[in-house]
Amino acid sequence: MLAPKGYKAAGVACGLKNLVAAKDLALIYSEVPAYVAGLFTRNRVRAAPVLYSRNVVRRGLCRAIIINSGNANACTGQRGLTDAKKTAALTSSALNVPAGQVLVSSTGVIGEFLAMDKLERGVQDVVARLSPHGFSDAAQAIMTTDTCPKMVSEKLRLDQAEVTISGIAKGAGMIRPQLATMLAFICTDAKVEKPVLSSLLREGNQSTFNRITVDGETSTNDMVVLLANGEAGNSSLSPGASDFWRFRESLFGVMGQLARAIIEDGEGRTKVVEICVRGAGKRMQAEKMAFRVAHSPLVKTAIFGEDPNWGRVMAAIGDSGVPFDPDAVSISFEDALVVEHGMKVAGTTEDNLKRVLQQEQFKIVIDLHRGDAEASVLTTDLSYEYVKINASYRT
Amino acid sequence: MLAPKGYKAAGVACGLKNLVAAKDLALIYSEVPAYVAGLFTRNRVRAAPVLYSRNVVRRGLCRAIIINSGNANACTGQRGLTDAKKTAALTSSALNVPAGQVLVSSTGVIGEFLAMDKLERGVQDVVARLSPHGFSDAAQAIMTTDTCPKMVSEKLRLDQAEVTISGIAKGAGMIRPQLATMLAFICTDAKVEKPVLSSLLREGNQSTFNRITVDGETSTNDMVVLLANGEAGNSSLSPGASDFWRFRESLFGVMGQLARAIIEDGEGRTKVVEICVRGAGKRMQAEKMAFRVAHSPLVKTAIFGEDPNWGRVMAAIGDSGVPFDPDAVSISFEDALVVEHGMKVAGTTEDNLKRVLQQEQFKIVIDLHRGDAEASVLTTDLSYEYVKINASYRT
Repeated sequence: MLAPKGYKAAGVACGLKNLVAAKDLALIYSEVPAYVAGLFTRNRVRAAPVLYSRNVVRRGLCRAIIINSGNANACTGQRGLTDAKKTAALTSSALNVPAGQVLVSSTGVIGEFLAMDKLERGVQDVVARLSPHGFSDAAQAIMTTDTCPKMVSEKLRLDQAEVTISGIAKGAGMIRPQLATMLAFICTDAKVEKPVLSSLLREGNQSTFNRITVDGETSTNDMVVLLANGEAGNSSLSPGASDFWRFRESLFGVMGQLARAIIEDGEGRTKVVEICVRGAGKRMQAEKMAFRVAHSPLVKTAIFGEDPNWGRVMAAIGDSGVPFDPDAVSISFEDALVVEHGMKVAGTTEDNLKRVLQQEQFKIVIDLHRGDAEASVLTTDLSYEYVKINASYRT
Repeated sequence: MLAPKGYKAAGVACGLKNLVAAKDLALIYSEVPAYVAGLFTRNRVRAAPVLYSRNVVRRGLCRAIIINSGNANACTGQRGLTDAKKTAALTSSALNVPAGQVLVSSTGVIGEFLAMDKLERGVQDVVARLSPHGFSDAAQAIMTTDTCPKMVSEKLRLDQAEVTISGIAKGAGMIRPQLATMLAFICTDAKVEKPVLSSLLREGNQSTFNRITVDGETSTNDMVVLLANGEAGNSSLSPGASDFWRFRESLFGVMGQLARAIIEDGEGRTKVVEICVRGAGKRMQAEKMAFRVAHSPLVKTAIFGEDPNWGRVMAAIGDSGVPFDPDAVSISFEDALVVEHGMKVAGTTEDNLKRVLQQEQFKIVIDLHRGDAEASVLTTDLSYEYVKINASYRT
């Protein structure tokens, strides 16, 4: 993956994962101070690195992000916080950058203390390996139950400058967005006004990471971070500039692709399904209903079984807490209209519907015929494999 | 199962289920008009028999309950309502009782019309077979994915009279209580003041059917009905009488046993687990948090895998929306304290915890150390078998 100008990255194995030689420590480095925006988990139980890194983001400048997998450093109390702080300090002195400009992030088992001796050696190693070509190693080093690294890169031309936006992410289970979800680190060499950076991240998150769910579970460690170091040499971006909207579109594109990559790697998934609620009174209601359907174990198992069981979709929307008239509802599986006025459409054949459900990716559209608001959520099915992964894996 | 005085029941096969000779039509009959109380699903999508029977309950007297399985008569529009009404009329004329005193209930596939010709013959058949010994046949005839019929009977002596309370229920999946859940029909020959009957049912429901969950799904067809026909000859029961509290206890006992029977037959379950939240600020908050844990796919799969993964319990309570201090939380698996002050207890051995999780039934206690309120929820694990049942069964 291409690094934006002025960034380097690396990923190494330092022994935090049980598997020998599995990469488990990643570093992203900016040669100059970058503006930073960040979103953190809304879970009330927050891991030490989340508590620590929120303060770094608040100060607004970032030179480095150090991320370990294999241990979440969550539910580790005061010692966990000290360890997060020490990780930042080790990184800052190895890189010779201010400690207050180092973000720390962790993912893995909850409730165990970090092996700081391993981490200390790991930091030396990962700093030594920094390179503009190191992003793929970094993307590998942040994986847990992920089956593949997740990287997205986009280039666009702004005035005289070529700008790059590159992001890496991890996540496959414990995925249900609440503001932020999972880990994602996005770097750009674009010059962006500082307050603009935060609002771009928040806005982009709404339609990307906040619209995916595997299992309705929100992790203790989630964070999404966006760095902009201005090394591309473009004129600084803010909503006044016409270039701003093109940059925004590219950025949201990168975020959307990373979000989709997480769903495509959803634990045990055999399908990727978009649940789209239309004709709702309010966007929040459409979103609430789409998530209720996306979290329904009965809908998810029916999708796994390729059973076009629209009755379960009706039962789920009825239980969503959103007001609507059941007799006005229509439901389509892709282009096949199956429910109209809350009842099965007379001509619908089971075979037509089966053909849709046999596809790997498809859309379920629920129209409430009530208003103009709509929302879509991307989700997975619930398979034997999901149960297997989570009956044995210790998060 | 013993019938209370003045009641008869029967269960027959009329061809609504695909399996030949599987019982699918049940009738409960009271020789004299009984006071009736009922609770119905809170799902916004309500089946025709729910819409129909609410009105019968509102009028307050009941002579008969006719219940079919194999077809939910839900999402069937005006024709569904007409069919429910016709079912009541057929039953009323076969029994020679007022049509306005016949309750109708259905469970099974959503979105198909009832085969009224089969039902018409079935009603004749089931009326002909009414008997005081017919409750077990009735309990069998209301099963869908249930693996066993659910019946509970209790006798108690009040003043000069012997009173019987007998109930049947069905349910194994799509179980998440919202006021009422699943189907349950409870008959007593006790004489009970009419307004008292409704409040007893509502109150008993709170601590029994409303505290169980298999998969967080609320059906379109749920109802819990309580009949009291006064044939036992006791002095009429109301909160003033000392006998009232003994009757109340027995009634809640019957409801609790039926609720537990549903969880013990939970789809694909290998465990029955009580999630108990203590030390909460408010009972509603304790209940909300207990349900959040009980619905967590990661907690449920860990229980299936007999993995004492308390980190997932911490992540789930943190995501419950209930305010608490993570650093004050303690968690026990039965008597084994595993978390104190939000962190793992130093002496806890994995082996001790494993031994608890290897039991078929156990309790997870979460103490927030915040207030005096508590609530318990009974739930199941999430197994391969749950996925299998629901990937192939058409509800």
